[in-house]
Amino acid sequence: MTDFSRSAREIDLENRTRRFVREVVIPFESDPRLAAQGLAPELVRELRAAAKAAGLLTPQVAEEWGGHGLDHRETATVLRAAGYSLLGPVAMNCMAPDEGNMHLLHKVATPEQQQRFLAPLAAGEIRSAFLMTEPDGGAGSDPELLQSTARRVGGDWVIDGRKWLITGAVGAGFGIVMARTGGQKATMFLTPMDAPGITIERVLDTLDDAMPGGHAVIRLENLRVPDSAVLGEVDEGFRYAQVRLAPARLTHCMRWWGAAQRAHDIAVDYACRRQAFGKTLIEHEGVGFMLARNEVDLRQTQLLIDWVAWLLDNGSRAGAESSMAKLECAEKLYGVVDRCVQVLGGLGITGDTQVARIFREIRAFRIYDGPTEVHLWSLARRLQRQYLEARTHAPTG
Amino acid sequence: MTDFSRSAREIDLENRTRRFVREVVIPFESDPRLAAQGLAPELVRELRAAAKAAGLLTPQVAEEWGGHGLDHRETATVLRAAGYSLLGPVAMNCMAPDEGNMHLLHKVATPEQQQRFLAPLAAGEIRSAFLMTEPDGGAGSDPELLQSTARRVGGDWVIDGRKWLITGAVGAGFGIVMARTGGQKATMFLTPMDAPGITIERVLDTLDDAMPGGHAVIRLENLRVPDSAVLGEVDEGFRYAQVRLAPARLTHCMRWWGAAQRAHDIAVDYACRRQAFGKTLIEHEGVGFMLARNEVDLRQTQLLIDWVAWLLDNGSRAGAESSMAKLECAEKLYGVVDRCVQVLGGLGITGDTQVARIFREIRAFRIYDGPTEVHLWSLARRLQRQYLEARTHAPTG
Amino acid sequence: MTDFSRSAREIDLENRTRRFVREVVIPFESDPRLAAQGLAPELVRELRAAAKAAGLLTPQVAEEWGGHGLDHRETATVLRAAGYSLLGPVAMNCMAPDEGNMHLLHKVATPEQQQRFLAPLAAGEIRSAFLMTEPDGGAGSDPELLQSTARRVGGDWVIDGRKWLITGAVGAGFGIVMARTGGQKATMFLTPMDAPGITIERVLDTLDDAMPGGHAVIRLENLRVPDSAVLGEVDEGFRYAQVRLAPARLTHCMRWWGAAQRAHDIAVDYACRRQAFGKTLIEHEGVGFMLARNEVDLRQTQLLIDWVAWLLDNGSRAGAESSMAKLECAEKLYGVVDRCVQVLGGLGITGDTQVARIFREIRAFRIYDGPTEVHLWSLARRLQRQYLEARTHAPTG
Amino acid sequence: MTDFSRSAREIDLENRTRRFVREVVIPFESDPRLAAQGLAPELVRELRAAAKAAGLLTPQVAEEWGGHGLDHRETATVLRAAGYSLLGPVAMNCMAPDEGNMHLLHKVATPEQQQRFLAPLAAGEIRSAFLMTEPDGGAGSDPELLQSTARRVGGDWVIDGRKWLITGAVGAGFGIVMARTGGQKATMFLTPMDAPGITIERVLDTLDDAMPGGHAVIRLENLRVPDSAVLGEVDEGFRYAQVRLAPARLTHCMRWWGAAQRAHDIAVDYACRRQAFGKTLIEHEGVGFMLARNEVDLRQTQLLIDWVAWLLDNGSRAGAESSMAKLECAEKLYGVVDRCVQVLGGLGITGDTQVARIFREIRAFRIYDGPTEVHLWSLARRLQRQYLEARTHAPTG
Repeated sequence: MTDFSRSAREIDLENRTRRFVREVVIPFESDPRLAAQGLAPELVRELRAAAKAAGLLTPQVAEEWGGHGLDHRETATVLRAAGYSLLGPVAMNCMAPDEGNMHLLHKVATPEQQQRFLAPLAAGEIRSAFLMTEPDGGAGSDPELLQSTARRVGGDWVIDGRKWLITGAVGAGFGIVMARTGGQKATMFLTPMDAPGITIERVLDTLDDAMPGGHAVIRLENLRVPDSAVLGEVDEGFRYAQVRLAPARLTHCMRWWGAAQRAHDIAVDYACRRQAFGKTLIEHEGVGFMLARNEVDLRQTQLLIDWVAWLLDNGSRAGAESSMAKLECAEKLYGVVDRCVQVLGGLGITGDTQVARIFREIRAFRIYDGPTEVHLWSLARRLQRQYLEARTHAPTG
Repeated sequence: MTDFSRSAREIDLENRTRRFVREVVIPFESDPRLAAQGLAPELVRELRAAAKAAGLLTPQVAEEWGGHGLDHRETATVLRAAGYSLLGPVAMNCMAPDEGNMHLLHKVATPEQQQRFLAPLAAGEIRSAFLMTEPDGGAGSDPELLQSTARRVGGDWVIDGRKWLITGAVGAGFGIVMARTGGQKATMFLTPMDAPGITIERVLDTLDDAMPGGHAVIRLENLRVPDSAVLGEVDEGFRYAQVRLAPARLTHCMRWWGAAQRAHDIAVDYACRRQAFGKTLIEHEGVGFMLARNEVDLRQTQLLIDWVAWLLDNGSRAGAESSMAKLECAEKLYGVVDRCVQVLGGLGITGDTQVARIFREIRAFRIYDGPTEVHLWSLARRLQRQYLEARTHAPTG
Repeated sequence: MTDFSRSAREIDLENRTRRFVREVVIPFESDPRLAAQGLAPELVRELRAAAKAAGLLTPQVAEEWGGHGLDHRETATVLRAAGYSLLGPVAMNCMAPDEGNMHLLHKVATPEQQQRFLAPLAAGEIRSAFLMTEPDGGAGSDPELLQSTARRVGGDWVIDGRKWLITGAVGAGFGIVMARTGGQKATMFLTPMDAPGITIERVLDTLDDAMPGGHAVIRLENLRVPDSAVLGEVDEGFRYAQVRLAPARLTHCMRWWGAAQRAHDIAVDYACRRQAFGKTLIEHEGVGFMLARNEVDLRQTQLLIDWVAWLLDNGSRAGAESSMAKLECAEKLYGVVDRCVQVLGGLGITGDTQVARIFREIRAFRIYDGPTEVHLWSLARRLQRQYLEARTHAPTG
Repeated sequence: MTDFSRSAREIDLENRTRRFVREVVIPFESDPRLAAQGLAPELVRELRAAAKAAGLLTPQVAEEWGGHGLDHRETATVLRAAGYSLLGPVAMNCMAPDEGNMHLLHKVATPEQQQRFLAPLAAGEIRSAFLMTEPDGGAGSDPELLQSTARRVGGDWVIDGRKWLITGAVGAGFGIVMARTGGQKATMFLTPMDAPGITIERVLDTLDDAMPGGHAVIRLENLRVPDSAVLGEVDEGFRYAQVRLAPARLTHCMRWWGAAQRAHDIAVDYACRRQAFGKTLIEHEGVGFMLARNEVDLRQTQLLIDWVAWLLDNGSRAGAESSMAKLECAEKLYGVVDRCVQVLGGLGITGDTQVARIFREIRAFRIYDGPTEVHLWSLARRLQRQYLEARTHAPTG
């Protein structure tokens, strides 16, 4: 029966996460080392030690890996709270691409692979990368264009190709590499990132910069891995990509939801204090309506996230539904943050609040994990498919 | 615990309503009497007899009044299905303003008033009106401007004033009249609509026309009613208006959701069949994206309606939340239908499908029950209030 | 040299038209005959007699046909002023489809055809129709789908087909019929509308209703016309359609611009008088911003219309540019009027002002003469074509 | 008479500017020094030497100052072409705030002030700043809040205050300081930027970074200037701010128009080459429509800029009209560039094209020189004022 209430455990974790983010994480935002060096390993270590002390490190994974064994719905609650600071997901080890990689390893890796890769990843000791997207007309919105190849040489596999926009590659302990293994088949491979044959050509200068390691261009040349490096089974790469896809998409939505809420709170606070033309900004309908609009959009995207999470918890692949969530969260949360920038006026375009940084992050989110237009396209295709199937199965047509 | 599943009873009622609407109600849409005379009483009687036979007449009211005693959430499911035809809510006796009036009478009327007014209304034998809105700067979005007055004369009340946009007044058995009874107090009165002192000046020529009786301008002049005509208690009119407000707002959302779904289905069907420039319309992304957008907006508004209904079921007044639902359903469902008109092209502006009719109805919905801008305004005011309260209660400020 | 000033003659005609519309035409809007019978011939005659008396009948045509011989730019000025009342273009005999038909006849008809058809049309004595659009997958946004045929029988032509959304057909003196005359060729024919073989099946029930005669469905069956009925030359129909296209599109923009300005003026007047929540509506930024937005959109569309008119005056076919003007005027002026409805609140959805009527007209304009999406599509195709041509002609590619 | 043609001189200057930007300026965009140090003085010198050699340095100023003496309309043509590279306006010495400062000095400075400040500024030898905006509730969208003060001490003036978002302050040769000189009066002062009493507290970390010197926070403490430092006359500061306002606003529109055109060209080129799902991107209507939309918005904003420039040339202050241009150019050009980011997909959020940089610049433009909302507000106020004036002057009301 439809119910929008939350369990005591969920509420407790949400409150603890909120407190942790406000009291511990947010002060790190003004740590001078951050401005000087970005998210250096030392900072990440400190943040994670604090999260661990608070019992909030990698909260989403199973208890065997040190987490709270949250289902997708509970994860939504906790990750929204974690996202309230751009540093929150890093601190709590639930950011992309690690969170999605943990989920995937949990689902399809062998026990040995889990020990070697998942255990330290879940413990927050290493980071990881997911090497799927390619430049120059390769795999992207259309994964069928995958051009990297893996071929059998001796008992090993030799992988060649180029990857692009690979998040977190610099500094990652290992990567999951997607490569074509014949015809329309692909396979995923686990490899240390310092393996010979992996060259990080450069880190892209991108609008967003909250993810440790940034987004890199990588060359794979004669990357030789043993059979035991095959994640799950050979030729099942496209299927595993689907396993990872919807949940990973959704955790992005959760984290950015929290960031948008942060921007909104900053803007509301400012609009309630700052005067212009004889009254506070929020008393100007031009501003008040924007903030009201934010309230509506934050609520709507929250409902959408919870609904898709519930579908995943109930066994649905939620392909189309997670497309809806992704496109809506990207567009609506972007709208929220864009309005916050506008409400703050000159202040909004400076680094004096977190809003401008969140703005840049969320702009990028409208593109990665499928640009809005690709999700609309796939939803339209589903509509047509449903129509054609209904005609086929209808008694008279 | 958050749960988006539905009970067996809810699913059963939804299926029965869908079937009833498709098999019984929709054929009435092309009944030549409708084009000739509009929603004449004879047609309404036939529709309601069919609904009664299907066990679907006035489904939302308590069992003592002949309904299924649905909570708000279940009502949402059934009314969305009923709204799939503009005639559905009329047939099932769950349209405005009767549905809201039944809710109000159920909550605050005396047993005698319920017998006299609620019983025949719930049985679908009569219709009713709600006389609150006024012309020329009177009660409207700002109810404080109420100008109609009721004063004590002998043991009776004498009511004077003018009302405007009074839905369903023509042909209504009784009305609920809101009038000022001193200072900032107002009282609601029950009166037969054929009482001396009530003059229907004219029925307005409006964009929308799906509600029986249309929207009228009414003059109240020396309308004399006894003490027993007071609905609930004297001077409690503004409070009762609040009791009626959020649920009535929400049932509008439910019904129009169904209508928008209908328009969408018509547009999808057309776009999957019609060819232009060498392929079906839906294969043109310009069209397919619009329909995909519809899918997203229909889902989002459904979630929002369900959430607010659940809040009402759990004892919340849901003032702000029902504002959100109202403004979003009005704007988003309007957007859905507007796109359907566009997808149909020339056909979309003709009466050859239901889409143009639904378009006109939903355009009006962006205004009645509070224009979008008034809801944004009240949400902005709440934000400011919350900010000020937080400052007041905070230990240090 | 770029110059936005206007000639004395243009200003004079604009002022005279404005005065005529305000003093003579607008009072007709509340003529009880209009509500009772619509735009009956008697009313049209009275309106035109008044326009003739004011020296403003058919102002756009050449002096030999009784007009002022306006170029497109001057026509823009006068037709914007005429459109200020929905009755203005009817009164001044510059509405669709007659205006476009006059333009076409002036350009390509023989002197005999001009005497017989153009002379009485320009004199406002008869009306005309343009029979191109077809139902059921025939000619529409994609004119190549033309299905009506004309074949040689004896020395005559026999035309068969069905036409749809034919504006002004009921009551028209003659029509211009487009029919396929072999392969990818089409021919236009002039025919009295009461010719045997022309059956008006029905007048569609459409959102818009300001054009005399409405929009009809027509069956052409064995319509026999002589050789002299060929407009211009055989097999040149598609080319003539282009001759008519851009200018006719643009005069729609001009007239609807005037209507939108009217709605805006009504809304501004209301917003400056009506009080809510302690101040006038326009002092609420929620309303004031909408009206400010209107000002911007009215100005932008005016500039766009003037620019395209100037291009036409300077010999450009202005295909892409008139597409821009059409789509922008349709979308932006619609937005203007939609906001006016919203500003007026409950009043906006009633027939008590002209705004609701203008709203319905302008909604339809987003579809006829090419839906917005078709114009975007053709602009995108032009971009691609320009790209490919530039590559072809570039020395090195 | 309305005319959209251009003079031979205008066309020639446009062509020369285009060629200069493409052949000389754009190669500088990938100069490694730019990535390493930003817009260092050495680079600026090289760019300006090249512009001077091309006869395109400071083209807008009067011939006596070395320019071509362009009127606003011609300036529009040249500055749009200059803006095609973010480095173009720097190279050609027509960027903000220098361009506006030159205009102001030309209009109101004494011959001595012109010799000392305008001459080297127009020669591109120094840069300048305009110190008006203040932090913390001081002068901003509402200039009346000006808090900096200048008081008479001996025969000098002593200025105190804080300034914020002061563009180009770092590295500027001189600044124009706005300070209150009693009651509602303000005065502008000319001062070398290295004068004791001027402290640049910090350069803000802002979304945009194309302007040399960035945006600084400045403390004025005991800044002592002589009488000869008064720009124009004492107490006329607010009036001079108006003199500078509309033209400076409009040159921003011109430059950003060029930048948006650049982004659009990059996106069109990419969309015509890149394949996805079996065809080029532009053949996907989802992409093609975005680019078509760009074409329309570029044309509309160009017309608007030209119209306002013409008004300025014809003696209008164009306050409201330049508000329209500013808000429309900011919002529409932003929309253009935002769509370009989206069309480029992953590439769009990287620094591998200029699009992401232009995106950040244009986001900031929606805020400085008056956020969109402030312009809407002032347009709404004008509407109300016009209404009230019309009532006052009307014979009967």
